[in-house]
Amino acid sequence: MLETKIILEDKEIPKKWYNVLPELTDLKTPLMPPLHPVEHTPMDPSLLEPLFAKKLIEQETNMKDEYIDIPEEVLKVYSLWRPTPMFRAAKLERALGTPARIYYKYEGVSPPGSHKPNTSVPQAYYNKVEGVTRITTETGAGQWGSALAFACQYFDLQCEVYMVRCSYDLKPYRRIMMNTWGAQCIASPSTNTKIGNKILKDNPEHSGTLGIAISEAVELAMQNDNTKYCLGSVLNHVMLHQTVIGLEAKKQFAKVDETPDILIGCCGGGSNFAGFVLPYVKDKKNGSKIRIIAVEPTACPTLTKGEYRYDWGDTGHYAPMMMMYTLGSEFTPPPVHAGGLRYHGESPIISQLRKEELIEARAYHQLEVFEAAMLFARTEGIICAPETSHAVKATIDEALKAKEEGKEKVIAFNLSGHGHFDLASYLAFQNNELTDYTVSKADIEKTLADLPDIQL
Amino acid sequence: MLETKIILEDKEIPKKWYNVLPELTDLKTPLMPPLHPVEHTPMDPSLLEPLFAKKLIEQETNMKDEYIDIPEEVLKVYSLWRPTPMFRAAKLERALGTPARIYYKYEGVSPPGSHKPNTSVPQAYYNKVEGVTRITTETGAGQWGSALAFACQYFDLQCEVYMVRCSYDLKPYRRIMMNTWGAQCIASPSTNTKIGNKILKDNPEHSGTLGIAISEAVELAMQNDNTKYCLGSVLNHVMLHQTVIGLEAKKQFAKVDETPDILIGCCGGGSNFAGFVLPYVKDKKNGSKIRIIAVEPTACPTLTKGEYRYDWGDTGHYAPMMMMYTLGSEFTPPPVHAGGLRYHGESPIISQLRKEELIEARAYHQLEVFEAAMLFARTEGIICAPETSHAVKATIDEALKAKEEGKEKVIAFNLSGHGHFDLASYLAFQNNELTDYTVSKADIEKTLADLPDIQL
Repeated sequence: MLETKIILEDKEIPKKWYNVLPELTDLKTPLMPPLHPVEHTPMDPSLLEPLFAKKLIEQETNMKDEYIDIPEEVLKVYSLWRPTPMFRAAKLERALGTPARIYYKYEGVSPPGSHKPNTSVPQAYYNKVEGVTRITTETGAGQWGSALAFACQYFDLQCEVYMVRCSYDLKPYRRIMMNTWGAQCIASPSTNTKIGNKILKDNPEHSGTLGIAISEAVELAMQNDNTKYCLGSVLNHVMLHQTVIGLEAKKQFAKVDETPDILIGCCGGGSNFAGFVLPYVKDKKNGSKIRIIAVEPTACPTLTKGEYRYDWGDTGHYAPMMMMYTLGSEFTPPPVHAGGLRYHGESPIISQLRKEELIEARAYHQLEVFEAAMLFARTEGIICAPETSHAVKATIDEALKAKEEGKEKVIAFNLSGHGHFDLASYLAFQNNELTDYTVSKADIEKTLADLPDIQL
Repeated sequence: MLETKIILEDKEIPKKWYNVLPELTDLKTPLMPPLHPVEHTPMDPSLLEPLFAKKLIEQETNMKDEYIDIPEEVLKVYSLWRPTPMFRAAKLERALGTPARIYYKYEGVSPPGSHKPNTSVPQAYYNKVEGVTRITTETGAGQWGSALAFACQYFDLQCEVYMVRCSYDLKPYRRIMMNTWGAQCIASPSTNTKIGNKILKDNPEHSGTLGIAISEAVELAMQNDNTKYCLGSVLNHVMLHQTVIGLEAKKQFAKVDETPDILIGCCGGGSNFAGFVLPYVKDKKNGSKIRIIAVEPTACPTLTKGEYRYDWGDTGHYAPMMMMYTLGSEFTPPPVHAGGLRYHGESPIISQLRKEELIEARAYHQLEVFEAAMLFARTEGIICAPETSHAVKATIDEALKAKEEGKEKVIAFNLSGHGHFDLASYLAFQNNELTDYTVSKADIEKTLADLPDIQL
């Protein structure tokens, strides 16, 4: 009767993260090094020390340890919401009439409501241990900012979140959440930084961009010894921390004696997708027939239409250059509601897996994604974040394909976050106020043409 | 390390609800019968059949079975979020420097975010089994409406929620949630009913009251054979369904070998409080020293300043009269943010326990309640609903008292719901825009004086 939910006990929370970097060094093209943002030459990791805790830089570049211990203090905070449940979506299966068995791992049970605290907690912890007293970061819609605020309150660190002004004004709820957890949330551009002041001097009404917000957070970390910067996606150490999701999922599948045929996750910077699928990469390399699908919006089709090349991580070009799929760091995606998927680039790890064809990628339109989310809410009862809903759409499509083929496939997706703060987007969909956006190859030619051609 | 969280396995979800009614019949004053709203004489339960499913009426009046089976289909839906976790609030304890051990049962993990689906799911289920196709109800801020919408989508029932117009306009999020789950949410007063039309004729701008919304939902259920009405609190069968909370809590305390000294819950109509504490009433009667505390706002001090007497359940006087603590059914409480605690009356079961002094009651001001909620968010990481925050405040006070007395008490409260849809209230508090309200004995004298004096 109760096999719709597969739970783990507290003692089954993984005690180690899975580090895919040693695995990747065995691939045809080993992971390429980050480059200095100005000199375009491989960067010594120590140059990152003004920005990041030493332990995080060590994890960022660790090519030898397949497993890395999760500190006891981090496990303690994880246990507030981990292990997360895995569900069989039996009612969705019946609605689709599919012979496929659909499972989802539910990360929305964390206090900030997404997978983000899987990394904000260890990032805050390592900074605390190294004597840092203040953390800066940027946030778009506020998912990452609220997850970092949550982690910083836990370790009694000051937290300053630079939030893109248009989101700050239009989406107040996650901002209030950050304040409630004791963080300072500042509309960006702000008067706290040189770059902010410069931009406001030119345009006092500037509505902000993620690129500017990053620059503000980075500037403050560079200038203050007690202050470091944290990033919520893209980097290797972020992917590492998120593997706790996939490691738990593996245990859960084992409990019900299932082997997934298809793994699905939505993909912006790549962190929830990586966290879910990286522990399966070795199986795939060793001949497993498992299919791994990254899903993105047609409005920001990094993996499906971008190029694999060196590009900066940010619009302002302060961040290192990374080898990745990119639409060009000056690319501005259309305003789809899945704000967390509006990133021009892609995690270098995920990019390389795509290049090596160990994972697939596909893109969906906004309307079909919301339609899938509505069906999911009306069958399984959970209202997903618009980002997550991309994974729901791909899952439904694969389940319908299994029906056509008459095959009993096992399909699993990562439900990376709930949509409690996205109900205005659901309303816009229900009122037929949403539009589809497609970015064509031609649209991104210009931003790609602006990039320097780098040969190492 | 991980003892901050006490979890149960799926197979430990209680298979029966605990029915306190046989227990109450042993008390000094057995539970008094409901009275006909017009004739003021004891009402035959069959008169409720146009409104409620037969099985629910049977549960409402079952004075003999101490335990009642939970249907398999209900357990299946419960397992989406049950068993709910119980946490040790270790960081709050440290912040208070108290020798007390504080625990909380977390009901916010359900898809609608509160304890309400513990009863909306069985109510929808029994109606479905009896051939009902449409359910009507009323809702204030939307907690109950969204929980019923969730349950109805699960059992493929039409759901019509009459939502007080001012909330409908000012608090759109839970309304969008209801729509997403396929329910129709209608601003009340509406043109769908006689009573709605009558009120709108007099005042087309009427902002609505819970009393009017109840009358609309009831009118529609009375007129249509395929339609029944559901209520989210107050009634005996609602309290019964909620006991799943306290039954789980008992198992969880047993796992860590703890015996609670004090149980605390916030109290409006009484459902989350009853659910948490009713399984302990027998222990209390049998000599246990456990203290059980109901917490309410000073703005609606039913148990602390109301009178124990017969009154109608609704403002429009369509509902039966019940023997309960009441401020008078025409009483309108000041606009505190804890909308779920703004009810003039109190569940007859809880009222009787109060009368018999098996439970205590206390009232708090709005500002001190939000202050407690802020401390809780900054230590334990969970942002509570304003209703729940009343229980947090009482818990903190009891923990500080234990500190003064140097006693190692075990204090537990029911965290009945998260505050994701109440962040505007948190913002108002942070911006010093909230006010305290006190209702004095004199304020309620008038509404109490309007009640008929009933002697059975």
